[in-house]
This record gives sequence, structure tokens and C-alpha cells, in this order.
Amino acid sequence: MTPTAHQLPDLLRDLDWIADPLRVGRLSQDFAWFSPVLKRDLAGKRGDIAVRPRTEDEIRSVVAACARAGIPITVRGSGTGNYGQSTPLHGGVILDLSGYNGFGWVRGGVGRAQAGIRLADFDAQARPLGQELRWLPSTYRSATLGGLFGGGFGGAGSINHGPLAAPGNVLAVRAMTVEAEPQIVELRGPEAMLLHHTYGTNGIVLELEVALTPAVAWTECIATFAQFDAALEFADRFGSAPGLEKKEVCFLAAPIPDYFASLAEHLPPGCHAVMVLVAPHSEAGMRDMVARHGGQVTYCKTADQVEKSRKTLIEYTWNHTTLHALKVDKGLTYIQSGFDPMRKLEQAKALEAALKGEVMMHLEFLRTKEGAFNCSGLQIIRYTTEERLNQIMQIYRDHGVQINNPHVYIVEDGKQNNLDPAVVRVKRRFDPLGLLNPGKLRSWVPPATTAESVAQTA
Amino acid sequence: MTPTAHQLPDLLRDLDWIADPLRVGRLSQDFAWFSPVLKRDLAGKRGDIAVRPRTEDEIRSVVAACARAGIPITVRGSGTGNYGQSTPLHGGVILDLSGYNGFGWVRGGVGRAQAGIRLADFDAQARPLGQELRWLPSTYRSATLGGLFGGGFGGAGSINHGPLAAPGNVLAVRAMTVEAEPQIVELRGPEAMLLHHTYGTNGIVLELEVALTPAVAWTECIATFAQFDAALEFADRFGSAPGLEKKEVCFLAAPIPDYFASLAEHLPPGCHAVMVLVAPHSEAGMRDMVARHGGQVTYCKTADQVEKSRKTLIEYTWNHTTLHALKVDKGLTYIQSGFDPMRKLEQAKALEAALKGEVMMHLEFLRTKEGAFNCSGLQIIRYTTEERLNQIMQIYRDHGVQINNPHVYIVEDGKQNNLDPAVVRVKRRFDPLGLLNPGKLRSWVPPATTAESVAQTA
Repeated sequence: MTPTAHQLPDLLRDLDWIADPLRVGRLSQDFAWFSPVLKRDLAGKRGDIAVRPRTEDEIRSVVAACARAGIPITVRGSGTGNYGQSTPLHGGVILDLSGYNGFGWVRGGVGRAQAGIRLADFDAQARPLGQELRWLPSTYRSATLGGLFGGGFGGAGSINHGPLAAPGNVLAVRAMTVEAEPQIVELRGPEAMLLHHTYGTNGIVLELEVALTPAVAWTECIATFAQFDAALEFADRFGSAPGLEKKEVCFLAAPIPDYFASLAEHLPPGCHAVMVLVAPHSEAGMRDMVARHGGQVTYCKTADQVEKSRKTLIEYTWNHTTLHALKVDKGLTYIQSGFDPMRKLEQAKALEAALKGEVMMHLEFLRTKEGAFNCSGLQIIRYTTEERLNQIMQIYRDHGVQINNPHVYIVEDGKQNNLDPAVVRVKRRFDPLGLLNPGKLRSWVPPATTAESVAQTA
Repeated sequence: MTPTAHQLPDLLRDLDWIADPLRVGRLSQDFAWFSPVLKRDLAGKRGDIAVRPRTEDEIRSVVAACARAGIPITVRGSGTGNYGQSTPLHGGVILDLSGYNGFGWVRGGVGRAQAGIRLADFDAQARPLGQELRWLPSTYRSATLGGLFGGGFGGAGSINHGPLAAPGNVLAVRAMTVEAEPQIVELRGPEAMLLHHTYGTNGIVLELEVALTPAVAWTECIATFAQFDAALEFADRFGSAPGLEKKEVCFLAAPIPDYFASLAEHLPPGCHAVMVLVAPHSEAGMRDMVARHGGQVTYCKTADQVEKSRKTLIEYTWNHTTLHALKVDKGLTYIQSGFDPMRKLEQAKALEAALKGEVMMHLEFLRTKEGAFNCSGLQIIRYTTEERLNQIMQIYRDHGVQINNPHVYIVEDGKQNNLDPAVVRVKRRFDPLGLLNPGKLRSWVPPATTAESVAQTA
């Protein structure tokens, strides 16, 4: 008799199963509640049971059992995403890889680890070896390396190395197929990237090999400005200055800094703020530049101070900015936007003029996949009506700014806009039965259906 | 009685004086012979005597003696420049600082050394400490740190950190004034940069403190291409790819590679070549990119192999490219050009189409002082007439490309085009008598003259 998901613990008794409905419910979620749309669309979506394997053998046994029984598998890390990427649409097993978290090695500028390792743990092991991760999302304390690869973009550090998707960042993955006899395959280079940002739909990533960057004892600073333009121009010039080493440049227009109660003493009410991670040897140059733009450095902590206090500015940037604001004011929502590298400042100034008071400008400076210096917006919006939200997005588009809809949970609607057909080919190889996170990869057509339609059209 | 330059050795007997006319003549020159114009203009210009001090006290004693006697002082390093920057126009003492070459220290990402240290020697000491220089001109084996600061631009590494002039690259200089009682002053940040690229006219730089970059065991590769466009596009994309770590990207259109006899076996006749220094962990990504552009990697040496062979591709890039070509064909000359970061490929393709056969395209990819990804041209030209050379330069300008005249030896005609008045103010402080490399800083008006003209106009 084919077992159901609920019966799997009886077959695989040694594994760490989680059947408690409350805990399974929690493991079915992420931060999709940022979006009222996702909150509604994903309501009630959940796995039947969760399992937290600790070894490759344990993973293999779960996968084999699911493949034999036709049970969906949704892989997840720490659930720090915003888009319901690892919320199962069709029940089944939640394969929580956070326990599969061994640090592998660092050799030269390359590191390797199991998918479930937390980014902070990876760095804690890599830094004594002189290296660190190229990107830290603001959730890096709990987010896993596999989760970042499966559903993330980049973070602090993308100002140097672009998104994960830029060639040369992720060097290889070791992945498992979903079959009665699971296979393990090492994919390198561009082939490995076919599993990136596909929400675990086309292979189970077990290990990752990533390019690193030499470790720096980053100093964390806040510069505040009375003028929007001056703050923005400082952020842009400092961000692109090739002689000043940095890992993060986050521009927060007024009144966003006012939401940061825990930093209030460093943020004059109504200020515009730029948060930076700067190398110690570049701090003097950064301060010169702040002064020349009429700003003030109101906060400055060495890496030692940051470590001792366990308070890092990274946790005020990227999606954490949104989180802090939403915690204070439930009437807020947000959009994500991609500027034109050639006219980003002009666009940001024009949009500030057009929507000040309603849209609060938050820009993360970064390099695109191709290396252009750009900024990405995570604007916070005072929500009134859906109609007005749509108007705002249209105003952005009319200014030549691309809107990345943060209210979707399908691979193709996310960053893989023009899905490479090779992504689906990889799924055929790694998930021939279509059991991985079903419903998330729209382009997937189960082979049976294909055969059928071929037969029908023949 | 006031001594002449020739009499100084009698006053300062312990110093290493060079009076032999042949040697003094050689120490009065650099590679200005690259330019027929400079060769003509600087013919016969030479110092009266040279001295090679080994300590700050020795430098001070020479400087004090010259200040008292009103003898010009021209500071020089190894004479690897191309523009007669350290050729004395008015005789006097050549202060050869190549013997003042102590390595100071490396602390974190910062290093310090005496001005006369050779760049290769600096790196040899810094690399075991995990750091390396941010820029290596192709002359790095013999060029000095002080010389690079006084008359250089950047080199391999400028693709990451821009020119020396970019804020945050040079952190401080220790400089001596030219007075009867020489003073020593430490200048930091932007103030230090007022002595940069001024050919030793406004202060004697004794020590430099520079930002470094973590040492990498660079692999050296040549990729060859049958098509100009493919080679150029590869160079551009690889150069800007944020995930692929590199220190050098040099594009050499056909037939330039044919001049490199010592690399002939790796350079198919008539090929277009791109020479790169790439981090080992980025080699696979680089090779993918070469293949996708239809190229071939024909040469690839690890850092170990490079060190053992003492043959580095750096010595085929930047001004060494010109040197190799000039050695083969005396009928060549060259220009230097700055492209528009927004349309650099388009400009290069159009100029290749317009001038192919007469102008050979050599582009060095780099970041500008502000951080824009750009390329700088050191085009080699089959010289016919001065009229035609001027036409070619005009065709470049008509395409929106800036021509940097390599046939000038005055500070203002070089990279300090719009001279910051502060440069002259610094000279007043460090060289009130106007004895440093006289004739090279056109904006300098001796204080006496100023007083006189003030009196006349009063």
C-alpha cells in the first residue's frame, strides 16, 4: 500500500520528523505576510509533515520514499524569504535542510558547505581562514546558504560582486534527483546556475561551492543629511568610488530613519540617512566625502564593537528596512524596483518630487549581473487603495523604472522573468515525477501530459 | 662663496654622487624617446650632477645645500616614465631616490614605504603579509612607488581600483620642503594628492602610505579571437563581470599581437588578443566567457609558473605594448585616448572601421576616478606625416574620444589639465624658492616676480 505523507515516520523511524500541526504550519511559512496579496493567496497552504534530516543518507531515504509514493517535497532553509517560495501549495513533505549544515572547506578564494548552513555560521568559520561570503542578505544570521541560492538575490556585498546570479559567484552545486533511487550529481558553472532562484523546483541542492572574498573587519557607519539630494549623491559617489572599499551602501530617505527606534539617538528626526559598511582603511576617505556633501557621521562602530554588541546595521538594510517600518505601522506596504543605471539619480529625484510623503525612498546600491553600478529600490508606501498602489507603480514605470512585483510566488513571475528553457530541462532530469514544490514552476508540463498531448496532436 | 652643483660633492663628501657625464646624462632621461616631439624638445636637457641618498639625513643635507645655493633639484625614481617628467630643464642636481627604498610596514589593508622602493620589491614584501599593491604599471619591476605617485597613472589593477588619483588609494605622504632648513610634513587624504602627478615640482615625497588589496595568486592568460568585435566584447564583459575577479584586461587588435615575437607560439598570426590576469577561482568562468565569444585560451600560466619563468604578461600591456611594437618598427608612433564610458565599444568599433590598417587598437580596461567602467586607448599608429597624425587625432575627437597628448612634458599639459590652484599653493609651502624641477609647472610664478608685478600694478 502506498503510504501517505503522514505515514512516512513509520517507514523511516530514525529521522527527525515534525508532525505537530502548529510547527508544521510555521515551517510552511516565510515572511510572505509582508504582502497582503501573498497573505491572502497563500492562506491555508501548508505541508502535511516536516522532516529535518542530518545526513545525505537521511535525505536520500526521505526522497526515495516520497518518489515511490508520489508525495510532493518542498525544500526549505530557515524561511527568511518574503515570497512564499517554500510554502507548499499541494501538501506533502517539507524537507527542512537547516540540520544539514556542515561547513566543508575554504581553499584559496573558494568555499564549500552543506546547503543548510546559516550564512553567519559559514562566515564565522571562513573568516579565521581569511575569507568571507560575497553577499549577506539582511537575514544572514538565520538564512541558509541553500535558501539564498534557491530563492535569494544577494545583499550586502552585491555592491561589489553583484547578485548571486553573476557568473563566477556560485561555482558548483551537488544536487540530488527525486527518484526511487535518488542520484547525486555535481553541476558546475552555468549548469549549476540553472537551479538558482527556482524555489527548489528542479533539484535538491545538497552542497554549494561559492567564490568568496577576502575577509575585512568592516566598520559600520551612518551618515545623516538634511537634504535628499545630498544624501543620494553621497551614496552614489561613495558607492562607485573605486578606491574606497565597502560592502554596503543603503540610502534611506526621510522619514524612514524615524522608524528605527533602536537607533534613534543617532538619527536626527526627519533626516535622510546612508548606512554603510566600510573598510577601516577607507573610513577617512568616506568621512571626507560625507563632509563634502554636507553630511554628518552620527554612528561609527568598528567590527569589534559590532561583534561585541551583536547589533549590526545590516539588520536595518534590504528587507529588514521594510520589516522595521511594518512593525511600527501596519498601514504600510512596499514595492521593489530596478532603476536605469544611466539615469538612476535623476529617476530617484524625480520620483521623490512626485511622490514624497506617500512613497518613502529606500535604495540599495549594487552592481548588476553585468557589473553596471545601479540601485535597487525597496520603497515603502503608505497604503490607501489598490488602485492608488497601481497608480504609483505606473508612475514608476513612466519614469523608466522597472517594477519587480513582490506579491508573486511563481518562479516565472519572480526574477526568472524570461525563463531559460534549460531550467525545465534540468527539472526533467532531477525531478522527472514533478514532485518538487509543485505548482511553483509554471512552465513545467508533467511528462505524462506531454506524451498525451503529443499523442493527441499526432 | 655660493657653490655650483658641481661643487656640492666637496661640501657633502659622504654622499653617493654621480658626476660622470654619461651616467648623469642617462639619469636625466626616461622613455620620452617614444615621442619624436619630446625627443626633439628635450634634446640636450640634463642635470649637472646626480646624487643617490640613502637616508633622510642625506636627503636633507642635499636639499639644504641646494636651497642655500639656489641650485635646482629634480627628483627621480627609476626613469620609467614616457614624458621627460624628470628630465631637468635647467640643470642642477638630480635627486635619485632609488636608494631611499626601505619597506615600512603592512597593517591591515594599508602599507607604507620610502619613495624609492621598487613596486616589485614592495609587493615581494607585502604578499607574504597577504596584501599587494592596487596598481602595477607594466614597468613595475623597476619603477618606484614615489615615481608612480609623482608621474604615473595606475596600471594593472586600475580595472578594480581606478587610477592612483581615486580617493582612498593614496592615504598619506611624508614630504620635505626645499629650504635652508628643510621641514618634514605629513600630508593625509586629499591634501596628499596635491603632490600627485606634479613631477616633483611641489614637494619632495619621502614616504607613501597607500591602501592595498588582498594578495591573489593571479593566473595569466591570453584569449585569441578571429573577430575584432568578439574580442572587444569579451574584454568588455569579462572586465565588468562583478563575479569574476581580475587584475588586468588588455585588448590588442590585430596586428599588434604579431609584434610579440616572444609569445608567437601562443598568438596565431593576425589574431586579436585579450590578455588577462584572473584569480584562480574565476578562471573557469573566464573560460566559459571566452568560449561563448568564439575565442580560444592559447596561453595560461599559474602564478607559480609566472614567478618561476619570470615572464609576465603585464610586461606586454600598457606602455610595454608600445615598447614592443616600437622595437620592431621604428616607423610607428602612438596616441593615448580616453573613451566615453557610455559608448566605448561603439566608439572603438567605429574607429577601427575608419582607421584599420593605419591605427592599431590597444585598449586597457579600467575604472575611472569616479568608478565608471571604461577603457583607455594606447593606439599604435603607422606614422606618415604630422598632418596625417593630426587628422587621425581629429577623427578620434569627432567620434567623441578624448585625446591625451603623450607628447608634452608640462604638468598642466598632462593629466592635471585643469590645475587645482591648491597645487600651486602647496608649492609655495614646499618650494618657496621654486627650485623643484623648474619649468615644469607653468602656473608657478616665483614670489619675487609676484611681488614685483603687484608693485607695478599698484
